[in-house]
Amino acid sequence: MFSAAEQNAMAVAMAEAGKGGKRVFPNPLVGAVILNSQGIVLSSGFHGFCGAPHAEREALGRIDSADGCTMVVTLEPCCHHGRTPPCTEAIIQAGIVRVVVAMKDPDPRMSGKGVRILRENGIEVETGLMESEAEELNSLYLHHLRTGRSFLHLKMAGTLDGRSAAADGSSRWITGPESRRRVHLYRKNAHAVLVGAGTAEKDDPSLTVRSVDCPNDQQPVRIILTDRELSQSLKVFRDGGRTVVASPFHIKVPDFVELWPDIHSLDELLIKTAAEGLGMVFCEGGGTLAASLVKAELVDRLSIFTAPALLGGSGLPLIGNTGSASIDDMIRLKNVTVERTGSDILTEGTIVHRAD
Amino acid sequence: MFSAAEQNAMAVAMAEAGKGGKRVFPNPLVGAVILNSQGIVLSSGFHGFCGAPHAEREALGRIDSADGCTMVVTLEPCCHHGRTPPCTEAIIQAGIVRVVVAMKDPDPRMSGKGVRILRENGIEVETGLMESEAEELNSLYLHHLRTGRSFLHLKMAGTLDGRSAAADGSSRWITGPESRRRVHLYRKNAHAVLVGAGTAEKDDPSLTVRSVDCPNDQQPVRIILTDRELSQSLKVFRDGGRTVVASPFHIKVPDFVELWPDIHSLDELLIKTAAEGLGMVFCEGGGTLAASLVKAELVDRLSIFTAPALLGGSGLPLIGNTGSASIDDMIRLKNVTVERTGSDILTEGTIVHRAD
Repeated sequence: MFSAAEQNAMAVAMAEAGKGGKRVFPNPLVGAVILNSQGIVLSSGFHGFCGAPHAEREALGRIDSADGCTMVVTLEPCCHHGRTPPCTEAIIQAGIVRVVVAMKDPDPRMSGKGVRILRENGIEVETGLMESEAEELNSLYLHHLRTGRSFLHLKMAGTLDGRSAAADGSSRWITGPESRRRVHLYRKNAHAVLVGAGTAEKDDPSLTVRSVDCPNDQQPVRIILTDRELSQSLKVFRDGGRTVVASPFHIKVPDFVELWPDIHSLDELLIKTAAEGLGMVFCEGGGTLAASLVKAELVDRLSIFTAPALLGGSGLPLIGNTGSASIDDMIRLKNVTVERTGSDILTEGTIVHRAD
Repeated sequence: MFSAAEQNAMAVAMAEAGKGGKRVFPNPLVGAVILNSQGIVLSSGFHGFCGAPHAEREALGRIDSADGCTMVVTLEPCCHHGRTPPCTEAIIQAGIVRVVVAMKDPDPRMSGKGVRILRENGIEVETGLMESEAEELNSLYLHHLRTGRSFLHLKMAGTLDGRSAAADGSSRWITGPESRRRVHLYRKNAHAVLVGAGTAEKDDPSLTVRSVDCPNDQQPVRIILTDRELSQSLKVFRDGGRTVVASPFHIKVPDFVELWPDIHSLDELLIKTAAEGLGMVFCEGGGTLAASLVKAELVDRLSIFTAPALLGGSGLPLIGNTGSASIDDMIRLKNVTVERTGSDILTEGTIVHRAD
């Protein structure tokens, strides 16, 4: 049973955890709150970035004594030596008598061991308060633990009849300013923005976050996936930001541009991005790359911006061949939400995979 | 100035008018309410079908005397001899002293003449109460008066990437039962359902109203537009309902099926349907016919049902070539509404035409 004070504290801990943002990856987002025996909040803390102190130590460090207190924390405290010593030690030493945990940490080094150590040291531990919210909060971390890959967020934008550009390739502007602003928010939220060679060369996008505030050190890395050499005059090669070219081959890239050779599949690419600390990859097309991601079942979240307009059958298709020969192969979305972004329609969801 | 009693009465008259439904075409929907000098509602009436008494006479006929009363009516009373004698005469004879009118009748035989005759006979007339609602109510009638054509409501249904069927032609069921039920409501609301030869032969639809209640005499006429002879075994030729084949040629059609030959354009078709009393035509495809209607600027209302699913670039396009070579030719919608029908998304609006 959780007290009202603990329930309120967990909501605060969730909000604290969220402050960590994308710099926390590959670590989980964690927030912690310390309550005294009367249920009064004494302090809180969150994990600020990978390598920084954990939320539990942040919260403990802000008060003189936590003796006899309860700690409310969004994730099972760690019990292993990483870049920082185990949180379980700090909790035990601080004299905490009760720990309320939202979810256990599925990291194989943990998965209940942290809870067990606390209990073995006479601390009362209860788990499961706001568990689904905690899982939602850490979808990036959990996805990475489970798959070893980055989380792939695919964006598409087109007309009601599924066309991303007119017959002559022109596409500015199909969707409106509110949709574009949302795209910039999604870029900011991502570690990397991914496009294929076709989009890079045809649209020559800068792929930076512009219409929302974004510190320079939080600009996403631009990744161009290509199997051929690209024009050196592309914006992403000249604007001073970080750009990576991923390719199966050792192709030539401009100075200051990073090459990831030997990337032979999208799966390999997303393992590489995860290993590089780029846990959230936001893909902005084009239709061929989008289709390949869908076919490979690598799309973890889908956002489709639809302008209330038609371009007709001569327009360029929103997405390439996904291998759906018959209606039985239709790719369905689940957890679908629909909202208006200005005059456009934004549909979001996740893809139902064959194994689901 | 309109009194509160008159404003309330006009809302009642609008609701009455709506009861007439599609059987009123090519006449306007009209409702009338009679108030005594204290503003008490004495009676109401509506125009039930083309050829039936007008709303004003219906309302007058329900009370012994309207002497000194006010009549509140959604459309300017008629002043010409049609199938029934002029309403202006009846109003004058009944001793009505004041008439409140929502909108003047743009019918060239009227357009203010009814109001003038009433005033010349000493009756006080005020117009413009709930005028825009009255125009909305009579969009079919006004459209017909203005253009001589039927009102064309185009439906399309497909996936988020604008595909109406998979590569092999299979399309059952892309959209869900709530969307299909809405389609049946739209069919019921229409005088005729229109499809092209391709859809008639590929899908062999019955095009009847089924999932909502519909008396047999209100089932829409099925119109197949074709430039070639059709298989005699199609459902629409065998189920006993009324089916029309429209064609530029004098092609052979099954017994009991009506042929409209010499229909050389969609414009001619919609003039013919209007002349046949089929004021609301609901077009259910396919993509080639839809594109022709859009290109000819004959679409008066558009409803697109979108399933949260993808079929990929090998699927059949929702709509054919609309002549949009460049983004500047993109066909935009206005007055757009978006709602969920079950798990699907229904987007509706009207098309912005070049002259708008």
